[in-house]
Amino acid sequence: MKIPEEMSKAIEEAQSVVLFTHVHPDGDALGSLLGFAAILEGMQKKVFCYLEEPVPHLYNFLPGRDRVNTTLDELFSFVEESEKVIAISLDCGDSRRLGKHETRLLEVKPFLVIDHHQSHKDFGDYRWVDPRKSSTGEMVFEIAQNLQAPISYEAAYNLYVAISTDTGSFCYEATSPRTLRIAAELVELGVQPDEVSGKIYNNYTSERIRLMEMVLGTLRLYKKGKVAMIHVTQDMFAKSKARPEDIEGFVDFPRSIRGVKVAAFVKENKDSVISVSLRAKGSCDVAELARVFNGGGHRNAAGFRFADKTLEQVQQLVVDQLIPLV
Amino acid sequence: MKIPEEMSKAIEEAQSVVLFTHVHPDGDALGSLLGFAAILEGMQKKVFCYLEEPVPHLYNFLPGRDRVNTTLDELFSFVEESEKVIAISLDCGDSRRLGKHETRLLEVKPFLVIDHHQSHKDFGDYRWVDPRKSSTGEMVFEIAQNLQAPISYEAAYNLYVAISTDTGSFCYEATSPRTLRIAAELVELGVQPDEVSGKIYNNYTSERIRLMEMVLGTLRLYKKGKVAMIHVTQDMFAKSKARPEDIEGFVDFPRSIRGVKVAAFVKENKDSVISVSLRAKGSCDVAELARVFNGGGHRNAAGFRFADKTLEQVQQLVVDQLIPLV
Repeated sequence: MKIPEEMSKAIEEAQSVVLFTHVHPDGDALGSLLGFAAILEGMQKKVFCYLEEPVPHLYNFLPGRDRVNTTLDELFSFVEESEKVIAISLDCGDSRRLGKHETRLLEVKPFLVIDHHQSHKDFGDYRWVDPRKSSTGEMVFEIAQNLQAPISYEAAYNLYVAISTDTGSFCYEATSPRTLRIAAELVELGVQPDEVSGKIYNNYTSERIRLMEMVLGTLRLYKKGKVAMIHVTQDMFAKSKARPEDIEGFVDFPRSIRGVKVAAFVKENKDSVISVSLRAKGSCDVAELARVFNGGGHRNAAGFRFADKTLEQVQQLVVDQLIPLV
Repeated sequence: MKIPEEMSKAIEEAQSVVLFTHVHPDGDALGSLLGFAAILEGMQKKVFCYLEEPVPHLYNFLPGRDRVNTTLDELFSFVEESEKVIAISLDCGDSRRLGKHETRLLEVKPFLVIDHHQSHKDFGDYRWVDPRKSSTGEMVFEIAQNLQAPISYEAAYNLYVAISTDTGSFCYEATSPRTLRIAAELVELGVQPDEVSGKIYNNYTSERIRLMEMVLGTLRLYKKGKVAMIHVTQDMFAKSKARPEDIEGFVDFPRSIRGVKVAAFVKENKDSVISVSLRAKGSCDVAELARVFNGGGHRNAAGFRFADKTLEQVQQLVVDQLIPLV
């Protein structure tokens, strides 16, 4: 699917742009937001860049992160004083994920939507939704090129982060020849892959490594190696001094084992809720498995939680009721 | 540096090619070996593909892995019966790394060398050595394109593995716009990034996870966290039942820690040789550090070895003589 004509025209003609993305933004959301903001400013447009929360600390290296407004207090005057204003929603598959100011944001007209989620639910006036694109960052690049807008180093850096994080560093299915060629152009604009990757992937603490060691020690295999389970306890957090976000990516270890179809990560949270993350490899549908315990998610990544059980009880439930279904 | 004229000419004119790489081959060594073999056969040349050991089990998914000879028994007749024969050494920075048949291989003339190691020590007749290239796989692609040789799916797959493993999935410094554009061309030839990545990164054994747990437990930080060191012993291999190649990538864990400039991985090998791998983050030149102990490598990946010391002695040497230089 190509960029809709009316979308290009609306962007070209706009003097002011209200720009935002989904709540709990990831690398693609933040990178396409800040990248597009830089591009639009380069086109001499006024930009009101909005995020419900401040930029998460894992992404505190993104250039231009200070553009972000975390309140809508000044939106009224921004829109009032602008002659031609448009709204652009980036990387958001469902208007409810725009957060608490959804209604206020949707009032800005025309409302443009740029997204690549498979499960996208239509909203807004002009939409460009293409699930075959690797990332919203890739789509923003296409728009800039289509409009012959200059791409500054700041814009290139943010778009590179968007594309590289949403493709798992050019590993996921939607990584196309075009994705790689766009990355090449961004590198030509000055982005250094090692510098960016260092910021994204080499930003861990030694406490995380300690916790990793403890969690890997809990690995158990079931069903002749088709299911792999690991767990983390509050005691491990205390001993390692790691932070809750340090477990990001741990479930990829059991998943990486040859022959494993389903990886389960059982977590004892601070509030003593026990949550379970499931990851599939191959054709297994873990969203269906998660529904056994009233959970949900995607085909490849799903989960569920219990507020009234111990970690051992939940593990036993998984072994007794879920693993036999794999 | 461009491909030397005489090298292109020698390849073009050869009827038979003896093709090999360094001992303990990694993804780049194997991918460029098997990729080049497929390309040369596509050019109607006879190929004698040699590896001292069988293809490591981590790479048992590479198409064309059956081409490999693990003895030189038939080399004599191959060379004798060939009218125009050449030898090509791939990804090997030092002729000593050709293994136990170094002398026999060097007897084949003309002897061509294609490599991208910074610390390359000249050998052979015609050399193309370019440390700015991301991988030997990238150089093999350039040669194929230069000679207008067709690149089959099998060749593309192997070259993609070579490039993607030697750039840490397009993360390392030598990832250039050209690297990414070559990857794009290989994807156009049918390579699926998600399929290849799954094979490379989700092809581990549970024994590897056990070993990882043990090795992570050895983590020590030095110089206020600027240096991180881990080690592996033969005892850990025995206890985990992991194989020697299972340690691939372990050095990335200490390297991933925030603030670490140099990661060191000290390994007790089967032959009781102690080898040390160094990885740099940022501007540190570990090839220079490795030279302290007569080692070599790239600016960001280097190493050295001792045949006459214990693991503890080598660790002490690193702490006393190498770490102060960081």
